[in-house]
Amino acid sequence: MSLAASSPNQLTASEMLAMLADDRISARDLVAACLERIEARDGDVRAWLAVNPQALAEAERLDALPRQRRGRLHGLPIAVKDVFDTHDMPTTYNSPLYGGFQPAADAAAVDLLRAEGAIVLGKTDTTEFAAAGQDARTGNPHDLTRTSGGSSAGSAAAVADFHVPLALATQTGGSTIRPASFCGVYAFKPSFGRVSREGMKLYAVSFDTVGWYGRSVADLALLASVFGLDEPLLLAGSQDALKIAVTTGPFHDRLEDASLEALATAAGRLREAGHQVHSLDLPADFDALDRHHRVILHREGQAAFRNLARRHGTLLHDDFHHRVDNRDRTTLTDLREAYDGMALARIAFDEIATNYDVVIAPSAAGVAPVGRKPGDPVFNASWTLLGVPCLNVPIDLEASGDQPLPIGVTLIAPRFADSHLLAHASRIAEVLNAKAPGIKNVRECRGSRP
Amino acid sequence: MSLAASSPNQLTASEMLAMLADDRISARDLVAACLERIEARDGDVRAWLAVNPQALAEAERLDALPRQRRGRLHGLPIAVKDVFDTHDMPTTYNSPLYGGFQPAADAAAVDLLRAEGAIVLGKTDTTEFAAAGQDARTGNPHDLTRTSGGSSAGSAAAVADFHVPLALATQTGGSTIRPASFCGVYAFKPSFGRVSREGMKLYAVSFDTVGWYGRSVADLALLASVFGLDEPLLLAGSQDALKIAVTTGPFHDRLEDASLEALATAAGRLREAGHQVHSLDLPADFDALDRHHRVILHREGQAAFRNLARRHGTLLHDDFHHRVDNRDRTTLTDLREAYDGMALARIAFDEIATNYDVVIAPSAAGVAPVGRKPGDPVFNASWTLLGVPCLNVPIDLEASGDQPLPIGVTLIAPRFADSHLLAHASRIAEVLNAKAPGIKNVRECRGSRP
Repeated sequence: MSLAASSPNQLTASEMLAMLADDRISARDLVAACLERIEARDGDVRAWLAVNPQALAEAERLDALPRQRRGRLHGLPIAVKDVFDTHDMPTTYNSPLYGGFQPAADAAAVDLLRAEGAIVLGKTDTTEFAAAGQDARTGNPHDLTRTSGGSSAGSAAAVADFHVPLALATQTGGSTIRPASFCGVYAFKPSFGRVSREGMKLYAVSFDTVGWYGRSVADLALLASVFGLDEPLLLAGSQDALKIAVTTGPFHDRLEDASLEALATAAGRLREAGHQVHSLDLPADFDALDRHHRVILHREGQAAFRNLARRHGTLLHDDFHHRVDNRDRTTLTDLREAYDGMALARIAFDEIATNYDVVIAPSAAGVAPVGRKPGDPVFNASWTLLGVPCLNVPIDLEASGDQPLPIGVTLIAPRFADSHLLAHASRIAEVLNAKAPGIKNVRECRGSRP
Repeated sequence: MSLAASSPNQLTASEMLAMLADDRISARDLVAACLERIEARDGDVRAWLAVNPQALAEAERLDALPRQRRGRLHGLPIAVKDVFDTHDMPTTYNSPLYGGFQPAADAAAVDLLRAEGAIVLGKTDTTEFAAAGQDARTGNPHDLTRTSGGSSAGSAAAVADFHVPLALATQTGGSTIRPASFCGVYAFKPSFGRVSREGMKLYAVSFDTVGWYGRSVADLALLASVFGLDEPLLLAGSQDALKIAVTTGPFHDRLEDASLEALATAAGRLREAGHQVHSLDLPADFDALDRHHRVILHREGQAAFRNLARRHGTLLHDDFHHRVDNRDRTTLTDLREAYDGMALARIAFDEIATNYDVVIAPSAAGVAPVGRKPGDPVFNASWTLLGVPCLNVPIDLEASGDQPLPIGVTLIAPRFADSHLLAHASRIAEVLNAKAPGIKNVRECRGSRP
């Protein structure tokens, strides 16, 4: 696919930046192409809760900026999940309690991207508070009857449907990786604690992580670099052939055929390409991690939603009262055990993962289900709890039908091996997808909303 | 001291609530008395960065509220450290970059207290971003040439000097407990993760904790209950005689005479009162916790201040560039080791502390030093890292001079034993201070500003 043949909104972020750098395109034309795509498609897809009315003016301002004052993301259109504060657009968290709420400042992550010249095209739909309650209305661009996943529904769909090349997301259970698998885009959830969450709606302090979507590994690495995640962890240098472990994790029985096929296909293609592929069984006590995740999630959610429960009563969705009232009836001893189990498993998993360049696991139970529910987080929550970097790679399956629904696999590395994971992911993605990721036919897709 | 003999601002929060409940005082008169005290004293003390111009009107609104609609903190004046967002007063973090900054919403902790009827009298001075950079201007009410400690300088001084009965603070190193020791007030830092930090300036995600000051243990317990921290951890019920461990911690050599005397006096009085007092030596590897704390603090601060460094350049205090540029030159392997050391020490300390009802340690190296520096955090940082609840109890020493400077000791319990710690602290405070805590002479104190 040559660049000239595509409309500009179909380019990856890295391609856009290259064209902006040699004046082959202006930020204004790029933003205009993205807005046109949004206008044409978003009545069906519903990725956006607000589009920035100042985006074109901002692009013109950036176009006029002398070259030496341009940032690393100069002129690049991005989407922001509507759980990050923005000073110039409402931030609703998709909650009826926050209709039209206008923060005074940008969240730290948004501020940094804007300081580097990115243009926020708008705010994308999300499961309420990136947690529970009200589902996002976003449809899956590959089949509008299906979910684009949750909670980062709109961000994943906006990237899959060529509205923007990059979008900010968050992950507390599976909120970044799972929508990427459902929508056929690349996604990165960095190691825990390495990107500021200031100005973000908080849910669980031990898990909430800023992540992002792109249509290439290079684009994921671009934002990682801006966030300072290009710093190497001093691991043993990897050989030409990667040493890869494949695991279904402890919930093998809940995997559907599509995810099993994705894992098997990934393993087969990587072996054919000359990499070492091993099967990995996680220690038996890793079965408990999903339970630990839920205990911590709901107890930290208890703290997060306490003020809203007190102030708004039944106007707050009952899911949040569930957390505040501790309806799981966990004790503080359960909580301490969950934290300690998490801490020990983080150490244990790092020891295992250090034996490999990359661990590969399912990104979701299967393809996107029909409806708008976010989907089962069981294949993501344990990795979130472990605090390890995770990267979704879409995989083209040789399907029986013409237009298979997207599916991905998760690449995982030890904590703080973010830059290594991105480097290996680039090589792995080339092997898994000889062609562009599975978003090629999306423009022709015409489902109807449920 | 009978209630009638005191001016209302000298009452504890619990006393105020009792009087408000039987209409012996109105919220308006209470707020007026506090504002009068602030007016009289704050030119010297400089605890406040902003006083709420709507406080009296808010008190009148609350006075008019039918009894059944009154909250648990109905009519109670409180102070809020200026790192918590307030929708109706500027939030500056004591940073020149945020002069006059006006957030759109209250921080979650502030919102909850207000939903229960508390009246925010204003915002108190703090070390910049509760981290480093610019010191608070607040003087110690007991001797204005001295620091009231940092970072929660203004909140501690406002409670010590009878401006308000309760004040919100935060702790990332020693920012709640140390100022309490210097100012002679009670302070509580709950177990990590149990009070929402939403809408707070973030520094280190593994440590930042909402805490508060009061002039009695009962007042600390009052806010703890509002924040849901009155839930018991199922520990073995304690006997009539408490089992208490006293430790200087690993930094014995840095303790000054006043802190050594405070510890010895506490141990002596508790023994005399019939409690079992043991000397506790922490495991040798606890020496490393302070170093782990610094590695994590500065690396998490790197993420926290990255956007400000990028946007403001040299207008941002160099202390924050220090974090962003990683001038400590720690590696990501150091960071992983620090996290793992923290995780294992949390488990190990809980095992030790569960053998006692309370562990007692120094709250600071000694009394408040001259100047405005926040003071050495080494006697607090390891407890913050361990995530355990900490409570400062001021202790009246039989001093040679008339007006000794305040000093306190820290009571510590295992993680999530917050309600037990508060219950034991109440008994211990009675033993340590036959009289009211060491704030009795503050009105007569007349130092001059340095």
